[in-house]
Amino acid sequence: MLNNIYKKIDELYPETVERRRYLHQYPELSFQEMKTAQYIADFYEELGIPYRTKVGGNGVIATLKGGKPGKTVGLRADFDALPIQDKKDVEYKSKVPGVMHACGHDGHTSTLLTLAKVMKEFQDELPGTIEFIHQHAEEQVPGGAIAIVESGALDHIDAIFGTHLWATTPLGKLQITRDVFMAGADRFEITIKGQGGHGAYPHETKDSIVIGAQLITELQQIVSRRIDPLETAVLSVGSFHAGDTFNVIADSAKIIGTVRYLNVSIQEQIIKEIEKIIKGVCVASEASYEFNYSKGYPPVVNHKEEALLVMDAAAKVDELHTIEEMKPSMGGEDFAYYLMKKPGAYFFTGANKEGHDYPHHHPKFDFDERAMPIAAKTLISAYFEFQNR
Amino acid sequence: MLNNIYKKIDELYPETVERRRYLHQYPELSFQEMKTAQYIADFYEELGIPYRTKVGGNGVIATLKGGKPGKTVGLRADFDALPIQDKKDVEYKSKVPGVMHACGHDGHTSTLLTLAKVMKEFQDELPGTIEFIHQHAEEQVPGGAIAIVESGALDHIDAIFGTHLWATTPLGKLQITRDVFMAGADRFEITIKGQGGHGAYPHETKDSIVIGAQLITELQQIVSRRIDPLETAVLSVGSFHAGDTFNVIADSAKIIGTVRYLNVSIQEQIIKEIEKIIKGVCVASEASYEFNYSKGYPPVVNHKEEALLVMDAAAKVDELHTIEEMKPSMGGEDFAYYLMKKPGAYFFTGANKEGHDYPHHHPKFDFDERAMPIAAKTLISAYFEFQNR
Amino acid sequence: MLNNIYKKIDELYPETVERRRYLHQYPELSFQEMKTAQYIADFYEELGIPYRTKVGGNGVIATLKGGKPGKTVGLRADFDALPIQDKKDVEYKSKVPGVMHACGHDGHTSTLLTLAKVMKEFQDELPGTIEFIHQHAEEQVPGGAIAIVESGALDHIDAIFGTHLWATTPLGKLQITRDVFMAGADRFEITIKGQGGHGAYPHETKDSIVIGAQLITELQQIVSRRIDPLETAVLSVGSFHAGDTFNVIADSAKIIGTVRYLNVSIQEQIIKEIEKIIKGVCVASEASYEFNYSKGYPPVVNHKEEALLVMDAAAKVDELHTIEEMKPSMGGEDFAYYLMKKPGAYFFTGANKEGHDYPHHHPKFDFDERAMPIAAKTLISAYFEFQNR
Amino acid sequence: MLNNIYKKIDELYPETVERRRYLHQYPELSFQEMKTAQYIADFYEELGIPYRTKVGGNGVIATLKGGKPGKTVGLRADFDALPIQDKKDVEYKSKVPGVMHACGHDGHTSTLLTLAKVMKEFQDELPGTIEFIHQHAEEQVPGGAIAIVESGALDHIDAIFGTHLWATTPLGKLQITRDVFMAGADRFEITIKGQGGHGAYPHETKDSIVIGAQLITELQQIVSRRIDPLETAVLSVGSFHAGDTFNVIADSAKIIGTVRYLNVSIQEQIIKEIEKIIKGVCVASEASYEFNYSKGYPPVVNHKEEALLVMDAAAKVDELHTIEEMKPSMGGEDFAYYLMKKPGAYFFTGANKEGHDYPHHHPKFDFDERAMPIAAKTLISAYFEFQNR
Repeated sequence: MLNNIYKKIDELYPETVERRRYLHQYPELSFQEMKTAQYIADFYEELGIPYRTKVGGNGVIATLKGGKPGKTVGLRADFDALPIQDKKDVEYKSKVPGVMHACGHDGHTSTLLTLAKVMKEFQDELPGTIEFIHQHAEEQVPGGAIAIVESGALDHIDAIFGTHLWATTPLGKLQITRDVFMAGADRFEITIKGQGGHGAYPHETKDSIVIGAQLITELQQIVSRRIDPLETAVLSVGSFHAGDTFNVIADSAKIIGTVRYLNVSIQEQIIKEIEKIIKGVCVASEASYEFNYSKGYPPVVNHKEEALLVMDAAAKVDELHTIEEMKPSMGGEDFAYYLMKKPGAYFFTGANKEGHDYPHHHPKFDFDERAMPIAAKTLISAYFEFQNR
Repeated sequence: MLNNIYKKIDELYPETVERRRYLHQYPELSFQEMKTAQYIADFYEELGIPYRTKVGGNGVIATLKGGKPGKTVGLRADFDALPIQDKKDVEYKSKVPGVMHACGHDGHTSTLLTLAKVMKEFQDELPGTIEFIHQHAEEQVPGGAIAIVESGALDHIDAIFGTHLWATTPLGKLQITRDVFMAGADRFEITIKGQGGHGAYPHETKDSIVIGAQLITELQQIVSRRIDPLETAVLSVGSFHAGDTFNVIADSAKIIGTVRYLNVSIQEQIIKEIEKIIKGVCVASEASYEFNYSKGYPPVVNHKEEALLVMDAAAKVDELHTIEEMKPSMGGEDFAYYLMKKPGAYFFTGANKEGHDYPHHHPKFDFDERAMPIAAKTLISAYFEFQNR
Repeated sequence: MLNNIYKKIDELYPETVERRRYLHQYPELSFQEMKTAQYIADFYEELGIPYRTKVGGNGVIATLKGGKPGKTVGLRADFDALPIQDKKDVEYKSKVPGVMHACGHDGHTSTLLTLAKVMKEFQDELPGTIEFIHQHAEEQVPGGAIAIVESGALDHIDAIFGTHLWATTPLGKLQITRDVFMAGADRFEITIKGQGGHGAYPHETKDSIVIGAQLITELQQIVSRRIDPLETAVLSVGSFHAGDTFNVIADSAKIIGTVRYLNVSIQEQIIKEIEKIIKGVCVASEASYEFNYSKGYPPVVNHKEEALLVMDAAAKVDELHTIEEMKPSMGGEDFAYYLMKKPGAYFFTGANKEGHDYPHHHPKFDFDERAMPIAAKTLISAYFEFQNR
Repeated sequence: MLNNIYKKIDELYPETVERRRYLHQYPELSFQEMKTAQYIADFYEELGIPYRTKVGGNGVIATLKGGKPGKTVGLRADFDALPIQDKKDVEYKSKVPGVMHACGHDGHTSTLLTLAKVMKEFQDELPGTIEFIHQHAEEQVPGGAIAIVESGALDHIDAIFGTHLWATTPLGKLQITRDVFMAGADRFEITIKGQGGHGAYPHETKDSIVIGAQLITELQQIVSRRIDPLETAVLSVGSFHAGDTFNVIADSAKIIGTVRYLNVSIQEQIIKEIEKIIKGVCVASEASYEFNYSKGYPPVVNHKEEALLVMDAAAKVDELHTIEEMKPSMGGEDFAYYLMKKPGAYFFTGANKEGHDYPHHHPKFDFDERAMPIAAKTLISAYFEFQNR
């Protein structure tokens, strides 16, 4: 059956591309993706596959119950876009100023819709049930995944799989890990409150810039001294702003940054260490501070069995010439929430468009559309592996 | 004669105040003070004292040649205003939006005009010659003083005196030093050019914020370790700006600050030390930099003899109950240029308006107008002391 | 046959213990372990197994050629001791003042000798050849392993296995990795050469302590910013010494530390980064420096196939109730050199003596002697796995 | 009379030198200078001038009451030596191993004894009373001065004068200030108590060296940011010691240093700021600390009237061709205590021995003995100025 499915997927390639390009021209921002949700719903409506809308927000879940007994497996695609101005020079360029599918979610969606259309044809012989999970708002914390999980809509599934078309990985390569796949990514904001004054009279002030500089220097010790060297942690300050002019000492300094980690216990430790250091620096200077730490998505942790299963599944997709067990990516994804609840795995499907090396979130981002059928084949192959296990 | 002069100064107090308040309502920015220059010129025209206009820019110098032989002495008042919105609630509030006499130069000018009017009456018996120097553009580097000096207009004078009405010093107090009176004040700008990148991949970047923080920390050593502890030096960073968002490592960091010093050799040392430290920090990080150092006014260094002479002169002004040899002020003044060329002294005339404690350059700045006749008396008393020496 | 071998190993337990305790009482320092080498040689002499002495120094290699064809496999035990005063209160305490088997090499040696004695009995039925490699000088760089490798004595072997009795791991547990097993461990020494002088006149000096403090602070950035966060690196300064008295600025500062890494490319990067930072700090202060970096043992990197094989082999040792794929240890071992040359694997054999929790190199270090037969069984089981593969 | 006194002083030059050289050969350490005290007492005994011994310790005070009415004035010379090995190559080299008059106190003593002998001859015509104050233990905190002051022995004097033969100032030059003359000099000791451990596992430790480095870096801010730039302050760390070996993280770090200041309020501020910074650094690292701050001698603050009087007195000494109002010296002296209690002044008498430029406390220190009569003349001239005022 798998070969017939693959063949069908290939046949539908032109409309997969067409659909992707349509979505690419009409991107919608996270949590505002109503029209895209409607587009997806209309698709299932026409197909005659039952679906639910407004799942955890703008989410849409369609359910294809096979004619044979089996397990229920979710396949997920996200569909929101980014606040980026499309600067590509192609016909299917975004028609919405300042909004762009710069991460490939249009491709994820079209891939999953194509797969649904194909599988509808095989419904009778299909063992088990496929839940086609179309998730909104992956790009913006708190994300759509947690709301879908909390809605209970997936309580009954047995496993979940998903993939990201990855524009910096060559076509024909699949990347996966058997453990942590993507990092946890948080945001923090520190305001040092010193005391301003005339630059010629520093002793009458508490110099926020000097205190802030001290703080940033000392924050380096978290990774260099305080985290187990066998763990992975990043603390980066992305922005430091203080003061208006050359001869006035700044009243306050604002420091904003990100933390990345692969292990939740490390996250907790880092938060404590940051605050300890801020506190110490302020004690030394009699300054005060505000510290806001916003947890983003937790790490995406693949389940070992399901990850191995995806590798077996991928071996059955001819177009995949390389299956790599990679190091974790330091990027984040709210697929994490599904894997905290259910067995499953997430992986990258190589989608590099030759000669077009713009990373995700770049204004000229694009991907090789031939990755879409590869992704569809891998997902359905994994589905069958899971059923057969 | 001095007592008669004092009496006359007192008689003219109402018109001194009136003139000052007129000027206060029509302030003009540095290098743009055409109407004020015209006002001054008109005054001397009417008085029948010969004057030159456009000296070194908008400067006006009037020359009162006494009937008796003697030395030529300059008395200086500056007349430009500041780009500050007047927020006082008084009748004579500035009528020019965003421009204000927030430093008392209106008072300096009115004081000197009154003194000219008085001395015109004593011209026959006057020994020597008074040069009434009305200087433009004190508030903005490079200032008017250097241009007046370079014009050669003062080449023939024997000495120069000047005073600043000082709003944070009590009325009746004169402050002076016998050596350095005010500091040199410079501005510097440093751009650290690292290499931006994703906050999750610091090893692919050169983190401008961490480098900048390191730099600011290390700059503290200039004053703490490298300058003779018996000298005076201040290095303050007033502004640090880098980065746009939390998860992107900043490509560059901009650091702007001021240096204060009392001794020109220290200034040169500090410039060298700053660059040495920037260079070292950049070597350690393979970053590059731009460093721009703009010298402001040099220190105002009183001549000892003339400073002692001012103290003697001040003793003859009844309203001055205190004559203080103060520590140098860390502020700057382009009177410095006159004293680099000619003997003389600069001093503060206490002008604190009781219950109105706003510092110079404050939007609510004001001064006690009774300080104007005191300043006039002290200047003319110093003039006579100098003639008698 | 394996079960018979196990049985025989168990029978020899008393003499295994006796031999270990004898060695324990007569420890010898690295590169000076002549008597121990002689003891080992005598043992093989008596046993009638041919052996070579003075291999790469004090090394002894005995060769047991089996009666059946097969591959040649090295089993390695190290036999040097440490410059530590034995502070245990046991009968078999070290009789050599200041020298002690505080790392278990006595146990390794006795284990291998017992195994040799046992295997001699099974020589006829034995497939392949066992090389019993008794290595000197593991505790001191450059170590004995590299000399043995370079002597060519192992050029003909097909694989090598070894184990460390590990006193902080419970008896019955085996720990291994399928990749990096132990870290590379290096030593560096930095001398900052400033310029001394009177503590009251810092501007006439180059303050080595302030420069050194700056350096140590900045070195933190290597791990926090410059190394790929998915790699493992440690840079620790163990000693900082500068200055003799309170009021004299130190002429120089000496900083000594260690670097740990799992990946040789990281080692090279760290060396470059350290020197770059030292250079920058010295440029900023016009100081000079000496920098000596001594590479220690490279990381012990297990070969995946052989590591998996050890796990299979261990499953056949009843006393091993737990086989753990652990994270790499940050400690170092010169077994690294064997694995750079030949396939093989190194692992820890749990040897924690209950209620006696002193780490390796502690003056009260000891281990549970029952770990010795477990180690012997695992090694010979691995040998057979390798033959059968 | 002054000229006759000067003549007599000159006549006694040979014995002044002889006495100085005798003392030079038999130096005694602070608080142990019994024989020197006896030598001085014997001298006054023979001279027939009444004296007290054991004043405040080993101090000796002789009182010469003049035949005419007048004020009582103390003239002070200190007489202790230093724990330094004399490395000069002269006949009068120290005969006591490891002890040396490396600061010129032998010269001070001989000068004062000569002056006493001279003035004894002029006793009848002398107005007022001279107290010859021979002070022990100037070189070691708490010093002899405070004990002499607290003994009440000087309660009745009207003023006190003293001088230091200064080996780096040319012969014929006198240096003085009209305000602060020498700095306050303190000692501090900080122990950072982190938590030691293996260098490969920094996260299990609190790295005392990194914490100490942080502290030293941050201490720079006291002078650079927290002290009024018009005040003088020095904080120097003279010694930093931590750790024994390269691969073990140090349990604690010891930091010892000195503070110099000219103004007691600054001293108090610095102590508070040091502790604030230590506390902050420890909070940031969860380390603990010990902080001991030992106040040394306070600043030597000349009284303006008496300083001016010394300058007038010096003008009457022909050998003094230069009288300089110098910047304060950053060195310390317990003459400070006399000036906290009584009017007076302290000054440097130039005593540079040409071609012999070793600073005070150097093993080859020596001075031009011709400075002794100059010092004697200046002191007695100041005495007469004071009587005449």
